[in-house]
Amino acid sequence: MYRLQAIAEKFSLALEGDQNIEIDGLCGLSDNLPGCLSFITQSNQRKDAQTSQIPAFVTRHEEPIAGKACIFHTDPEYAIALIARLFEPTKLSWEGRIHSSAIIHTTAVIAPDATIGPFVVVGRDAKIGAHSTLYPGVVVMDRVRIGAHCVLYPNAVVREDCVLGDYVSLQPGAVVGGDGYGYVARNGAHIKIPQLGNVVLEDEVEVGSNSTIDRGRFTATRIGRGTKIDNLVMIAHNVQMGEQCLIVAQTGISGSTKLGDRVTLAGQVGVTGHLNICDDVTVLGKSVVAKHVLRPGTYAGIPIRPAEQWRRAVAKFYSDSKPDE
Amino acid sequence: MYRLQAIAEKFSLALEGDQNIEIDGLCGLSDNLPGCLSFITQSNQRKDAQTSQIPAFVTRHEEPIAGKACIFHTDPEYAIALIARLFEPTKLSWEGRIHSSAIIHTTAVIAPDATIGPFVVVGRDAKIGAHSTLYPGVVVMDRVRIGAHCVLYPNAVVREDCVLGDYVSLQPGAVVGGDGYGYVARNGAHIKIPQLGNVVLEDEVEVGSNSTIDRGRFTATRIGRGTKIDNLVMIAHNVQMGEQCLIVAQTGISGSTKLGDRVTLAGQVGVTGHLNICDDVTVLGKSVVAKHVLRPGTYAGIPIRPAEQWRRAVAKFYSDSKPDE
Amino acid sequence: MYRLQAIAEKFSLALEGDQNIEIDGLCGLSDNLPGCLSFITQSNQRKDAQTSQIPAFVTRHEEPIAGKACIFHTDPEYAIALIARLFEPTKLSWEGRIHSSAIIHTTAVIAPDATIGPFVVVGRDAKIGAHSTLYPGVVVMDRVRIGAHCVLYPNAVVREDCVLGDYVSLQPGAVVGGDGYGYVARNGAHIKIPQLGNVVLEDEVEVGSNSTIDRGRFTATRIGRGTKIDNLVMIAHNVQMGEQCLIVAQTGISGSTKLGDRVTLAGQVGVTGHLNICDDVTVLGKSVVAKHVLRPGTYAGIPIRPAEQWRRAVAKFYSDSKPDE
Repeated sequence: MYRLQAIAEKFSLALEGDQNIEIDGLCGLSDNLPGCLSFITQSNQRKDAQTSQIPAFVTRHEEPIAGKACIFHTDPEYAIALIARLFEPTKLSWEGRIHSSAIIHTTAVIAPDATIGPFVVVGRDAKIGAHSTLYPGVVVMDRVRIGAHCVLYPNAVVREDCVLGDYVSLQPGAVVGGDGYGYVARNGAHIKIPQLGNVVLEDEVEVGSNSTIDRGRFTATRIGRGTKIDNLVMIAHNVQMGEQCLIVAQTGISGSTKLGDRVTLAGQVGVTGHLNICDDVTVLGKSVVAKHVLRPGTYAGIPIRPAEQWRRAVAKFYSDSKPDE
Repeated sequence: MYRLQAIAEKFSLALEGDQNIEIDGLCGLSDNLPGCLSFITQSNQRKDAQTSQIPAFVTRHEEPIAGKACIFHTDPEYAIALIARLFEPTKLSWEGRIHSSAIIHTTAVIAPDATIGPFVVVGRDAKIGAHSTLYPGVVVMDRVRIGAHCVLYPNAVVREDCVLGDYVSLQPGAVVGGDGYGYVARNGAHIKIPQLGNVVLEDEVEVGSNSTIDRGRFTATRIGRGTKIDNLVMIAHNVQMGEQCLIVAQTGISGSTKLGDRVTLAGQVGVTGHLNICDDVTVLGKSVVAKHVLRPGTYAGIPIRPAEQWRRAVAKFYSDSKPDE
Repeated sequence: MYRLQAIAEKFSLALEGDQNIEIDGLCGLSDNLPGCLSFITQSNQRKDAQTSQIPAFVTRHEEPIAGKACIFHTDPEYAIALIARLFEPTKLSWEGRIHSSAIIHTTAVIAPDATIGPFVVVGRDAKIGAHSTLYPGVVVMDRVRIGAHCVLYPNAVVREDCVLGDYVSLQPGAVVGGDGYGYVARNGAHIKIPQLGNVVLEDEVEVGSNSTIDRGRFTATRIGRGTKIDNLVMIAHNVQMGEQCLIVAQTGISGSTKLGDRVTLAGQVGVTGHLNICDDVTVLGKSVVAKHVLRPGTYAGIPIRPAEQWRRAVAKFYSDSKPDE
């Protein structure tokens, strides 16, 4: 629990109204909880805010809320993201910085302030950086390098030779470096091509629960700095992804495809292999990308077209088949 | 192995025919296995039943099968579901009710008849209810509450503060309470919004293998009583799902969407965020729900329409493009 | 590191050019790495090969590359798949063949040359074959039989009674034998039908990261010899799959469907239940199979048609809705 004034001071933000309010959590406007700090991002939310039980809001300077304590920030949602860190509960702890049950190869190097949970395994010549946390059941295989401030949630797996930068997080069950799906046909059978490459996750990459990123065949599968991957996403071998991409749940990207920076793929998108998608492309949910995308813009469809064209085609598809009236 | 009479008596069901048949398992009609008890649900299956090797059937009173021992029930498939419990094999056991390798926080409360497997971790102030089983590799983080008669299969993960009711099951690798996919844009980067909420799974919810249910941003993601979730399903943060829903494999539901009761989403459906889907809606496989659904019924399509309209549109889509004949 | 001559000799292949080149890895032509052995499969790659930094190639006899050392094989990609095994790095090792932390039921039979990692659990009457490896966190439940030369990567789970042939691999987090999604409606609730069957993976089946294969209701879900399953694939209960199939990422196959031999389902395909798909069928990505497929060929669409018909329909779908010009 924090006094509102303490929150404002911690982030050097202007505060108007009762600075002694005790804040015991955060909530959305529609959650309407007493004792919470909330926020608004649009001026038309002011009325609901005013009539809510919520005692305090983060809002823009030009949009104070009558009768409520207000903390001001030009980007209230960003401010809330920062303030939220104050309210993060404990997650799981264990005896000792490195739990006595963890199996750590004698050649592995664990930074003096990393924490390693029960039943974790760390392989030969692996490195775990400062302030990183490996939760129970995490397996980190030979020569893996994990940077500083990383969080690997329970039962995440990082296979041999993969590299995680700083501030990388893997949600539970995420798999980094599984074998790519590579076979060569021979006498009616599929012969496995050993997958000798690795996966590189640059700084600030986040990977959702049970997502899988396959190792490259000979070289690296690479995810650029700041890219965020949601749950149950599949990234195939040798994909090269730029920075600050958003890859939403259940999307799949086939082998060797290259994405530029700031590419957003909404949920359940499928991308075929060996394609180039340029910077600043957004693909709407469920779409199929089967050709190169060389111009920034918003695309949709199976297969994709500029989103407006897809919408027109769908409208016609349904209107053409209306029953006789 | 059970004598047929013992089965009939155990469930107080009427039996006709040789009550001394030894039953060593159950099978479907097409499996056609001697020594098994099977069932029929349609009158047109009687002929195949009669000529099969199967010695005994559950059937409706009005549909006895000549030459076969018959147990009668108004709903034979339901009766078989009950009888099947007699034939469940052992799954896995270990020394001691709580295996000596499990790491259980001193403040956690384990009901006297719960069983905890090897390499399980249970966090601070967590509670595990009566008759619940945590299989090996399960991780239950701080303050999690698990009701009675729950089964958590190997390597399932329940993150901090999540709540499971009674008779909840998680298949292997299911993840409950992973971080929601929440970021705010700031200077060209995606800033993580800490996900402070939790997940509530009400009584009798079942979650399939490797499915993921994300914790709410500030409050709860909630799955209503009796809802069954298949494998590789993704439920995003703050989804509110009603009772007795069926969410089939590889379906994804985006953030803050609300489903009523008895909603069925077939396989690979995608639902966008912040929608309302009313009670008694069925959406066929692969469909996209991109708007509110305010009337009960069966829907299909990308995006959805009433299923009949989708079928007509698809028929026209293909007929229009037939090659010249 | 290998001298080129040693590689050629090991596989009895003809070699032309500098046989003393030291090879420290493999690469693709576009990787263009010095010190590596690469390969070409098409004659139009010869020019790029010639001007690359790569010192040595596998190529067809009739396509030597001027200025480069060449190893000859009629199928260069196949040769590279074999040679790649020489360059596989260590993955993870531990003290003792069977790590002291593993919990193995006294009735389980572990072949004298199988290796079992830390925090593995093996159930009652289970059998682990010769040269098989169970990586950390793997759980193998009661009566499971695993053949020879199998590899189960970290945190894979095999539930009770399932059977794996020889040379089967499970990537991290794969789940074999989770409960099928079987319920019977009763008084407005979904009553679970206990899933008494198992999963049989025949020889040389490979299963990708976090894929799930459900156990049959009464009998087996079966995957035929040599079939390769990619990541995040869902195979429902009682599916019967033939030999040498390729099931690409995020595809889902519903209950009791039968696939013949050499069926290829590209990424994100959905197949409804109780269907028959004959031998030698290919279904392109994102398609929906909702009827039997009785003729070999290539299909696409939602729902599928012969691929050419789908392409024509899509072309018309988009051309019909072009804006007025």
